[in-house]
Amino acid sequence: ENACIDTHRSVRCGFPEVIYCPGKSTGEIVQIFRKLYETGVNILATRAEEPVYQAVRDSEICPREDLTYDPRGRTITLMQDHYDSLHGDISVVTAGTADVPVGREALATCLAMGQNAELIADVGVAGIHRLLSRLERIRKSNVVIVAAGMEGALASVVAGLVDVPVIGVPTSVGYGSNFGGLSALLTMLNSCANGVSVVNIDNGFSAGYTASLINRNFKRSDE
Amino acid sequence: ENACIDTHRSVRCGFPEVIYCPGKSTGEIVQIFRKLYETGVNILATRAEEPVYQAVRDSEICPREDLTYDPRGRTITLMQDHYDSLHGDISVVTAGTADVPVGREALATCLAMGQNAELIADVGVAGIHRLLSRLERIRKSNVVIVAAGMEGALASVVAGLVDVPVIGVPTSVGYGSNFGGLSALLTMLNSCANGVSVVNIDNGFSAGYTASLINRNFKRSDE
Amino acid sequence: ENACIDTHRSVRCGFPEVIYCPGKSTGEIVQIFRKLYETGVNILATRAEEPVYQAVRDSEICPREDLTYDPRGRTITLMQDHYDSLHGDISVVTAGTADVPVGREALATCLAMGQNAELIADVGVAGIHRLLSRLERIRKSNVVIVAAGMEGALASVVAGLVDVPVIGVPTSVGYGSNFGGLSALLTMLNSCANGVSVVNIDNGFSAGYTASLINRNFKRSDE
Amino acid sequence: ENACIDTHRSVRCGFPEVIYCPGKSTGEIVQIFRKLYETGVNILATRAEEPVYQAVRDSEICPREDLTYDPRGRTITLMQDHYDSLHGDISVVTAGTADVPVGREALATCLAMGQNAELIADVGVAGIHRLLSRLERIRKSNVVIVAAGMEGALASVVAGLVDVPVIGVPTSVGYGSNFGGLSALLTMLNSCANGVSVVNIDNGFSAGYTASLINRNFKRSDE
Amino acid sequence: ENACIDTHRSVRCGFPEVIYCPGKSTGEIVQIFRKLYETGVNILATRAEEPVYQAVRDSEICPREDLTYDPRGRTITLMQDHYDSLHGDISVVTAGTADVPVGREALATCLAMGQNAELIADVGVAGIHRLLSRLERIRKSNVVIVAAGMEGALASVVAGLVDVPVIGVPTSVGYGSNFGGLSALLTMLNSCANGVSVVNIDNGFSAGYTASLINRNFKRSDE
Amino acid sequence: ENACIDTHRSVRCGFPEVIYCPGKSTGEIVQIFRKLYETGVNILATRAEEPVYQAVRDSEICPREDLTYDPRGRTITLMQDHYDSLHGDISVVTAGTADVPVGREALATCLAMGQNAELIADVGVAGIHRLLSRLERIRKSNVVIVAAGMEGALASVVAGLVDVPVIGVPTSVGYGSNFGGLSALLTMLNSCANGVSVVNIDNGFSAGYTASLINRNFKRSDE
Amino acid sequence: ENACIDTHRSVRCGFPEVIYCPGKSTGEIVQIFRKLYETGVNILATRAEEPVYQAVRDSEICPREDLTYDPRGRTITLMQDHYDSLHGDISVVTAGTADVPVGREALATCLAMGQNAELIADVGVAGIHRLLSRLERIRKSNVVIVAAGMEGALASVVAGLVDVPVIGVPTSVGYGSNFGGLSALLTMLNSCANGVSVVNIDNGFSAGYTASLINRNFKRSDE
Amino acid sequence: ENACIDTHRSVRCGFPEVIYCPGKSTGEIVQIFRKLYETGVNILATRAEEPVYQAVRDSEICPREDLTYDPRGRTITLMQDHYDSLHGDISVVTAGTADVPVGREALATCLAMGQNAELIADVGVAGIHRLLSRLERIRKSNVVIVAAGMEGALASVVAGLVDVPVIGVPTSVGYGSNFGGLSALLTMLNSCANGVSVVNIDNGFSAGYTASLINRNFKRSDE
Ligand SMILES: Nc1ncnc2c1ncn2[C@@H]1O[C@H](COP(=O)(O)O)[C@@H](O)[C@H]1O
Ligand SMILES: Nc1ncnc2c1ncn2[C@@H]1O[C@H](COP(=O)(O)O)[C@@H](O)[C@H]1O
Ligand SMILES: Nc1ncnc2c1ncn2[C@@H]1O[C@H](COP(=O)(O)O)[C@@H](O)[C@H]1O
Ligand SMILES: Nc1ncnc2c1ncn2[C@@H]1O[C@H](COP(=O)(O)O)[C@@H](O)[C@H]1O
Ligand SMILES: [Mg+2]
Ligand SMILES: [Mg+2]
Ligand SMILES: [Mg+2]
Ligand SMILES: [Mg+2]
Ligand SMILES: [Mg+2]
Ligand SMILES: [Mg+2]
Ligand SMILES: [Mg+2]
Ligand SMILES: [Mg+2]
Repeated sequence: ENACIDTHRSVRCGFPEVIYCPGKSTGEIVQIFRKLYETGVNILATRAEEPVYQAVRDSEICPREDLTYDPRGRTITLMQDHYDSLHGDISVVTAGTADVPVGREALATCLAMGQNAELIADVGVAGIHRLLSRLERIRKSNVVIVAAGMEGALASVVAGLVDVPVIGVPTSVGYGSNFGGLSALLTMLNSCANGVSVVNIDNGFSAGYTASLINRNFKRSDE
Repeated sequence: ENACIDTHRSVRCGFPEVIYCPGKSTGEIVQIFRKLYETGVNILATRAEEPVYQAVRDSEICPREDLTYDPRGRTITLMQDHYDSLHGDISVVTAGTADVPVGREALATCLAMGQNAELIADVGVAGIHRLLSRLERIRKSNVVIVAAGMEGALASVVAGLVDVPVIGVPTSVGYGSNFGGLSALLTMLNSCANGVSVVNIDNGFSAGYTASLINRNFKRSDE
Repeated sequence: ENACIDTHRSVRCGFPEVIYCPGKSTGEIVQIFRKLYETGVNILATRAEEPVYQAVRDSEICPREDLTYDPRGRTITLMQDHYDSLHGDISVVTAGTADVPVGREALATCLAMGQNAELIADVGVAGIHRLLSRLERIRKSNVVIVAAGMEGALASVVAGLVDVPVIGVPTSVGYGSNFGGLSALLTMLNSCANGVSVVNIDNGFSAGYTASLINRNFKRSDE
Repeated sequence: ENACIDTHRSVRCGFPEVIYCPGKSTGEIVQIFRKLYETGVNILATRAEEPVYQAVRDSEICPREDLTYDPRGRTITLMQDHYDSLHGDISVVTAGTADVPVGREALATCLAMGQNAELIADVGVAGIHRLLSRLERIRKSNVVIVAAGMEGALASVVAGLVDVPVIGVPTSVGYGSNFGGLSALLTMLNSCANGVSVVNIDNGFSAGYTASLINRNFKRSDE
Repeated sequence: ENACIDTHRSVRCGFPEVIYCPGKSTGEIVQIFRKLYETGVNILATRAEEPVYQAVRDSEICPREDLTYDPRGRTITLMQDHYDSLHGDISVVTAGTADVPVGREALATCLAMGQNAELIADVGVAGIHRLLSRLERIRKSNVVIVAAGMEGALASVVAGLVDVPVIGVPTSVGYGSNFGGLSALLTMLNSCANGVSVVNIDNGFSAGYTASLINRNFKRSDE
Repeated sequence: ENACIDTHRSVRCGFPEVIYCPGKSTGEIVQIFRKLYETGVNILATRAEEPVYQAVRDSEICPREDLTYDPRGRTITLMQDHYDSLHGDISVVTAGTADVPVGREALATCLAMGQNAELIADVGVAGIHRLLSRLERIRKSNVVIVAAGMEGALASVVAGLVDVPVIGVPTSVGYGSNFGGLSALLTMLNSCANGVSVVNIDNGFSAGYTASLINRNFKRSDE
Repeated sequence: ENACIDTHRSVRCGFPEVIYCPGKSTGEIVQIFRKLYETGVNILATRAEEPVYQAVRDSEICPREDLTYDPRGRTITLMQDHYDSLHGDISVVTAGTADVPVGREALATCLAMGQNAELIADVGVAGIHRLLSRLERIRKSNVVIVAAGMEGALASVVAGLVDVPVIGVPTSVGYGSNFGGLSALLTMLNSCANGVSVVNIDNGFSAGYTASLINRNFKRSDE
Repeated sequence: ENACIDTHRSVRCGFPEVIYCPGKSTGEIVQIFRKLYETGVNILATRAEEPVYQAVRDSEICPREDLTYDPRGRTITLMQDHYDSLHGDISVVTAGTADVPVGREALATCLAMGQNAELIADVGVAGIHRLLSRLERIRKSNVVIVAAGMEGALASVVAGLVDVPVIGVPTSVGYGSNFGGLSALLTMLNSCANGVSVVNIDNGFSAGYTASLINRNFKRSDE
């Protein structure tokens, strides 16, 4: 058997295993979906192309209307459970329009982990008033995810303006010396502003997961 | 004037500016120390070589006995304030003995930010029972910092065993294809276990800072 | 003539030449297959796409039923000989499901070299109990091949738990700062656990070949 | 003869040859200084360590009081001429205190090229109000040089706020994944804000030179 | 809403926002086009494939004959305004024929910014007389853009022959150790000739934008 | 006009301009072919895909039978002239079968430059007797071109056995840590055997060109 | 406590923990030495500079005459035990004289692991007869370690001539595009000859360790 | 014995073994010098620091006055033989003053190989008239060595102007994105002008060796 599902994970780590689709056959994905469904957890499949979604939908594992597919963020979601969450939420901020798919993957992950989250798109530093006009909203969140490509400067700027953790997701948006997201990755790792930690290029899922781990236990000192 | 201190930072970001010593003259460091002292915040100076500490100590800015110097982690600390903290704490775990200086920089940062923290050293994956025997202790923390050099695999293993955020600090311990910490950095960014976010190579300060941002508002759902 | 077959290789090196298909025309592959067949050795063709297999099969070089094709590992095998082997075997361990094709290439190579081998899939460090529950089996082998992508931490963890050589095969599974397998490659080269030696990214063949060189002469000291 | 001075350069390129000291013996530097002095141009020597300055000063090539040495920016200057300049000036902005040496090399170059220039230090994005409070001043300049290390985000932020060319100088300030300035270099090359062009890491001279070429012919449309 | 147009940009930066097409749906591009059209600015869309142009054209936002599409440089242009420009112009020089698309993107940008500009193609250093025979023309310009791939040596050679700023655009033309334009990028950043500043690989747009910022305020001292 | 042919090149450099096809339209290639044909030189077009050859052939620029097309090496050749050549020749040696296309590009270049040359294929170091059995032949040449991918060790081994210049052409044959030919490139640049100089990855043309420059003037001291 | 010795390792892995000296204080090293001495295992300390050896020697942990120090390979050895070994041995082959220190680290490791081993130095491929004249000796070994810098071609050549596993140790000998051993590392990973597995640059210890794991259980089929 | 001298090399390769000093003890160098002296060949030791020269001189191996030491190029030479050379010579051209040491290593190598050679220094492309004024001299040579750092553009420019082979030696002169000579190395490998082959960064020895192999058999067709 090529898959060995970690059904114990939600006990150990707080959230169940998530299905990363690339490199798995559609048949394998459907089978893993079925097994997870039986355990009663929320199911999230990432990097799921449309035909994968259709195969899951047509497999009659679960009522069709319980499945959600986001073609932009390429996620399939099925909610069966809700997890601990205090009242706060997570802001998912993107620098440009092209960073939205990564932002949406993060958003879907937060929701699947039972957290509140909101997407704030296209507020990059080229026109910094766009960020400043949304700042009051962002400051209300317990964690801020910043998805940015090209030079990825937005993460530093946000971290200099908030008092909560910032999770940077460099995206591969750009070309030339962007080197597939390396530029934004190095930017975020070398942030001169404090409180930024970083996940892999284009890894909206990991940002959403870590943000959820933080948010579900977060209690603003002013609360 | 070559320095423009950000005295507003603790209001905006929750913690005051920290003095990064490299590239500053001893005179400049003493002067910044003095200005921060007057604002009544906790002071932390990182990457401070022994002579820098002596200059600060001899400058009579503050009572000598209020200053702490950690030669291994190269930090100078002066506590004047305490910040919001719930009851939890932060584990700072290192893979090997050589990762201890980075771990100590993280530790000093947590303490200066008013958080509880503990160092757990030399529990790398080559002898994994060393980690497993400390796991109960580590699982009690609200955040876990993992400092590891060479291949940095410890971050993934820890993240697979706890239900709180793991902050990975790749260290430059190693040689050859380690490429100054690049090996451990890529390992942590590509972790197959979830909940790992990463800071710059050898940046114990940043790990401690982010962990403090998380910990001071963290409230275990079981509390 | 563009190919100059090294028919002397099994005398010099213990195993015959193997056909690496990329960059060769189908006609050339069939011709080399025929020449090797005449020398009576076991034949292995790697990175063989389906049409290449069909061309070999339809060429009537040999009885069709003697040919085996593995579409997942992309190998064609034809057994004519068996080589020296003591009683032990080789474990081929993969970290995830997506590493299985590389694992299967290694497996097919071991078998073609006349060795016993078994595939143990999807036991990566994110859920380390999956590895621990298979450990007794793995420890019985004379050599362990570990195929892992993303951060490739599994090789270090296995090497810390067994007393035989571990051959690490980094795979290109992953994205972003994985850089086509570089991440796992550096991990394995910098293993803090001892006894790991490494082959090229995705090179299941080389891992299987070296494991076979070791296994065929291996005699457990407790035997 | 190991040096072949390009005395024709100020005719062809607008400014005379400048002495880059590394890799030249003190004797050679003194000799080139002498030859340039005879042609009556302004002389600038960059990356000049203190002993080089002393050797030039003691060589009695010119009246000692005509020589200026800046130990922070490591430049020796001797003014004999002034070049065309309209009334505008150049702002040299640095992100941190440690970027000041590079900023001062740029400043000295502008002055030696006969331009007006001013240094504005330590206004990085971690505390963005520091930049905003200097913005009116910066907007009066015809060109803005931004010297920044770590992640170098300041160049993008400035370029989004001014209507003149921004010349980015990445500095090697930082460590770890900064990779000797690579991080800031990629940031500036991938700026999402427009109007940024980039020179080599730590190359304050080149930034100052290009800024001078622009400034001496610049005429604000509102003048 | 995934796009947040920076309508204030021409006031702040001198030129309006430009539409970078990759990563935006055709619908989004048409919508942004419409909004920009209403503000009365010149519109430039870069990296626009033919179907994008057709969609804009068929959307009846504006009279068809006002739209220009350059399939080689992949730009859509719509002129509604003209910006400040003194009498000078910009030379866009390419090293080879294959660098022409990048040169044309630069050219279209200059024109959309209201500047005069001319393309001078295929004058690389392998046959340097081709450059020398065009030198008199090039020297009349206020800024020179040099687009060159392979080793990109042309930027240095031009900068040694003119007294105005040179903006280097490395192109990705070449193969092997060209590494997608890295070779020409490093060449231009390390130019031994002065006055070269550099933009991202293949970024004709950025070169044209910066050149326009310079040219519109440039006044030759001999005028 | 996008192309500016360097008709003076054969006078200056000994051989005429060669047509590098990528990035040029078929129409442009035909036109350049025509112009070169009129000057009476030998014409070589490299990296020419089949349709480009057909377009040239059908353009009736020259008698069809004068054109030669090599689909493996992707070269079009038309001989009108012969250049100075003493009696010696050039060996083009390839390490594997997959390196043959690069070898054939080198071969075609030598022939177009009027030199004698011979291809010796698949004699890599894995079976070194294959090289040794051809050594007498190779030693008769005035220059040896070695095209090798994977680790490219053949260049060093050959250079240790001959007393003439060896020109190494690293090829991109391989995968994983081969990094598109980087592995073989670094090998050849770091050869422990002397007399190896190197051209770009896959650049059979450049190897053939340089070999021709050497061979046409070479006179063995024993002649 | 900063060190947590893995006393269980020889049971689990077959050989005890080895002391890697860099990053440990002399005091710590002495203490670890003492603890290991008490367990009765063979002790090996690698990368041990002379003063470290002297401190161990003067600490009177053990009889001085039981300690061996190799200043070239920088190893301290103390033998208390012998491990299982069949009759075969290990050849440690170096390409040049400068690779000898790495070869000696490998040698000392083999001996400390209770194996027979022999050093064969300076037989690189530039003069391949040097290798061929030692080949009969090398072929008698059960494993061959090849330490080579510059281009590292020796590993491929040896692997093409023997029928046992070859462990490649790239060394950092060389300069320029050697990039600290990267050149030889890539060479060995991409070996066209089979049976080569690779350890980290300059890691003679790891090569010796893996070779020992193989040798102690190796039984030539012809025995 | 750590050294195994290849006394057969001059027969096989045309020139004897050369002593590369780094990584060898002074004693070993003296000993190799003595052995080579006895065979009657010309001796060249490269990268020889002053104390190495003194040790050789004081060892009384040979008459002191027969030894030559060049401290700039760090070579020790002892001439005992002369090799075949036709009447032509080699030009060694450097771009800047700082490239002279590499140029001198090349020069010394040519002379030790019995060839005529001349150094032409500081004629880089920033002031191209300096090259053009020496062109007639350079064109008389049979081979041209170009040593250049920073962006290394000189190699392409020279190759476009001569009809003999150009050997490019990238130097490590520069800083920042020069990356230790990588910039000039890539430039020369990607030369748009033909006839350039390349050796390792700073490897004046290899350039001189290859140039000598070419020159000693070169016979200009016009002779
Ligand atoms: N060809 C180009 N290359 C790089 N950046 C561009 C290009 N064309 C436009 N841009 C920039 O990309 C920005 C659009 O980013 P977005 O918010 O994602 O739409 C524009 O405001 C321009 O500054
Ligand atoms: N020369 C060496 N290179 C790499 N690793 C080594 C070397 N010598 C010993 N080691 C490993 O380093 C480990 C010690 O790490 P630490 O816990 O930091 O003391 C030992 O158990 C060995 O596995
Ligand atoms: N160890 C450290 N590593 C990286 N950044 C640091 C460290 N310690 C302090 N910092 C940051 O460096 C900033 C000081 O930068 P500067 O303006 O150059 O003095 C502080 O405000 C911190 O945010
Ligand atoms: N400057 C140099 N750079 C690179 N290789 C050199 C240099 N000088 C000599 N060599 C080569 O290094 C070899 C000596 O290697 P070894 O066996 O370690 O003594 C000589 O035979 C030369 O081929
Ligand atoms: Mg936008
Ligand atoms: Mg330890
Ligand atoms: Mg799995
Ligand atoms: Mg500051
Ligand atoms: Mg052309
Ligand atoms: Mg073959
Ligand atoms: Mg030697
Ligand atoms: Mg000069």
